[in-house]
Amino acid sequence: MQRKRIAIIGAGPSGMAALRAFKSAERGGTDVPDVVCYEKQDDWGGQWNFSWRTGTDRYGEPVHSSMYRNLWSNGPKEALEFAEYTFDQHFGRPISSYPPREVLWDYINGRAVESDVKDAVLFAHAVRRVEFDSESERFTVTVDDLRHKATITEVFDEVIVATGHFSFPNVPDFEGIGTFPGEVIHAHEFRGAERFAGQRLLLIGGSYSAEDIGIQSHKMGARQVTMSYRTQPQGFAWPDGVDEVPEVARFDGSVAHFVDGTSREFDAVVLCTGYLHHYPFLPHESRIDSPNNLYPDGLYRGVTWQKNPRLHYLGAQDQWFTFNMFDAQAWFVRDLILGRFALPDADERQAHIDEWKSAYAEVATDEAAVRFQADYIRDLIEQTDYPMFDLDEVVATFLAWKADKKVDILTYRDKAYPSVMTGTMATVHHTAWMDELDDSRERYLSTQLDADEASEPVS
Amino acid sequence: MQRKRIAIIGAGPSGMAALRAFKSAERGGTDVPDVVCYEKQDDWGGQWNFSWRTGTDRYGEPVHSSMYRNLWSNGPKEALEFAEYTFDQHFGRPISSYPPREVLWDYINGRAVESDVKDAVLFAHAVRRVEFDSESERFTVTVDDLRHKATITEVFDEVIVATGHFSFPNVPDFEGIGTFPGEVIHAHEFRGAERFAGQRLLLIGGSYSAEDIGIQSHKMGARQVTMSYRTQPQGFAWPDGVDEVPEVARFDGSVAHFVDGTSREFDAVVLCTGYLHHYPFLPHESRIDSPNNLYPDGLYRGVTWQKNPRLHYLGAQDQWFTFNMFDAQAWFVRDLILGRFALPDADERQAHIDEWKSAYAEVATDEAAVRFQADYIRDLIEQTDYPMFDLDEVVATFLAWKADKKVDILTYRDKAYPSVMTGTMATVHHTAWMDELDDSRERYLSTQLDADEASEPVS
Repeated sequence: MQRKRIAIIGAGPSGMAALRAFKSAERGGTDVPDVVCYEKQDDWGGQWNFSWRTGTDRYGEPVHSSMYRNLWSNGPKEALEFAEYTFDQHFGRPISSYPPREVLWDYINGRAVESDVKDAVLFAHAVRRVEFDSESERFTVTVDDLRHKATITEVFDEVIVATGHFSFPNVPDFEGIGTFPGEVIHAHEFRGAERFAGQRLLLIGGSYSAEDIGIQSHKMGARQVTMSYRTQPQGFAWPDGVDEVPEVARFDGSVAHFVDGTSREFDAVVLCTGYLHHYPFLPHESRIDSPNNLYPDGLYRGVTWQKNPRLHYLGAQDQWFTFNMFDAQAWFVRDLILGRFALPDADERQAHIDEWKSAYAEVATDEAAVRFQADYIRDLIEQTDYPMFDLDEVVATFLAWKADKKVDILTYRDKAYPSVMTGTMATVHHTAWMDELDDSRERYLSTQLDADEASEPVS
Repeated sequence: MQRKRIAIIGAGPSGMAALRAFKSAERGGTDVPDVVCYEKQDDWGGQWNFSWRTGTDRYGEPVHSSMYRNLWSNGPKEALEFAEYTFDQHFGRPISSYPPREVLWDYINGRAVESDVKDAVLFAHAVRRVEFDSESERFTVTVDDLRHKATITEVFDEVIVATGHFSFPNVPDFEGIGTFPGEVIHAHEFRGAERFAGQRLLLIGGSYSAEDIGIQSHKMGARQVTMSYRTQPQGFAWPDGVDEVPEVARFDGSVAHFVDGTSREFDAVVLCTGYLHHYPFLPHESRIDSPNNLYPDGLYRGVTWQKNPRLHYLGAQDQWFTFNMFDAQAWFVRDLILGRFALPDADERQAHIDEWKSAYAEVATDEAAVRFQADYIRDLIEQTDYPMFDLDEVVATFLAWKADKKVDILTYRDKAYPSVMTGTMATVHHTAWMDELDDSRERYLSTQLDADEASEPVS
């Protein structure tokens, strides 16, 4: 009997989790399908694969990553730790709770290298089309090999979409923005805040992008950072020079007028207005069409396309949990594909979806949202051999993080948390985040700093 | 017998020329095929359909146009005039030789409206896939209706690719560019030079983009404009504050080091490094894979795909001539599709291609290049009923334009030329280009300026 063939689209954290899941089963002695992962970039890591480029890449493909040079994790690493490849295992010693991007890339790369799965990934391969043939019940996948300038067509039994949904900007229109004289970019195109030093910066948006780009810009010397919210202010204790205003009504030259009748002049605008679900390689009837929330419609257990259960999505939810949630999803999808449990019929699946959607409709607070996502992950892990971990403890970590941010948005990254997986206490980093202008892995891991280089640790 | 079905991909100047060509035949009493034009943007005009957006549009599709707010034609309008819809016919009175973008959009829109072809265009429709079935000899075209979120599939007898090749940036890498602290964009993302006032700007590139963005930035008050060339300097008589240097060797922070050992500090970089041929909706074997030149390989008479003569490209060449060349191409392709002349067999076509490629290989100067493209257009028009015009006179206009630029790069747009089509002499514009900061159509067409608003005309 011929082996099943599985296509994974995207080698970011979700696609890498799927590769890991199949490898883990294989190492356990299971006969696994042929797995091919198509990645349009030249390396894996998805959002964590930083590129200075914006717009399109050297092949003319849309740049995937929204990562900026100076990004540090904005949540404690203890909330995203893999249950079966810990930070201790990778780094061999404790590190701090909020590492910069290079260090997190190093961690996910380390697990993937340890998995020995690079051969399964076809880099610089852009998936153009995924078509399902209902007679043969197989997918025809059309892919451009960007380096060799060839178009290839392959047939698969199941397809796992792991392309993420933080790559295609949602960009609303604003009256007069077309003649704003300064730089106007979306957060997707933001690569560093150095150039906003001395400038008056408007960030349109009231969520994580605005918060972090705002604080980065403040750190890098922006003269004034204004964040414009639509529904409600973030309400942090902003430092001098950073504040929040309501929605932009219109621009008039370099002046933004807000809906409360106030106005300010700006040098630059960054649109922190979120992202679109965008799957141009799929026919519309196979695409998620959802706002960014914790339970997008149409997915059984948040992963398997209800209308065609041979199609799966990883990481399609909004995310409190990230890497370890992708693992839980990947293990579940793997076991479904391996036939380790039977797929319920369509009605049962729909009843399950409806049940979880009802539960989600009751979620009214951030705390409830974190608990909802923890419950979702627990439900997935219980079906598989992924190591269960103390999800309530991770929820507690998230809540402590939120409290830390409330106390001081500039110093929360100097806090340390214990690992839920190993109990190891994170170190207090050698330099306070606000004083650290070198975000490199080398600097981060250095233990030989000159005394005058390191600032006083925050305890 | 069923009518043939023709798909045109893209409703920019080339696609609009194709629509006009079929309409012209229909008005002449010919039974024409069903023509459908798919345009991913919300309006037609291609590059001339300005958007303030960069990166991706509101549907998540790559923004097509590289147009900037303040662009004025960089060649005399007399060189691009349609032979069968003149500027006189559209504007009803003489205008100047170098109109701003809104005025040129108005002109091409005017012809298209007069053609009554808007119903043939499906706007906000992105073509995802064009597959040729060699048995049925028909194309299956898969298209996303972006507004209604539906994927549709249609079958066509012939396909005309009119998507252009100035939309996907060619972006080389440079050592250290990833940590350049200032803004780094490609010319494709440039929307206006106001924000470079007082700044030191590096333009990487030695062709039209660098030249015009450089001059725009100088006009808008840039402190220093440096253009970096790879092969040879443009060599214009640059004003104070604008000059040329050789290739960038590397960046070190905000300092660019050039291959001649010199270095300069910059606030911003604009990559004027050209564009890629990029046709993600076609299999590679149907795609032009050519540098940007006057005779891309694989196209019979520069338009019809040698390997499959039911596939055509318009405007795939580098361009001295533009609108009227697209017309000549569209009329030729139309007549081929209408069967007004027989398609030569593959060997004859190849011999014709080889002959023209040999001639192109002899082209060594700009003047020879303009004459080569004029000869190419003459050869096309001779096959069809498109009105022949005095191509030698257009060549003379191009040469005069080049001489004007050589004399003064800041004032060449103040010159006036006679129409090759009507003999009408262009007006001298009411305001010298360097003094004109309002690029609107309204201002341009105004004849009631206050005396003190208008500057002295340049004669």
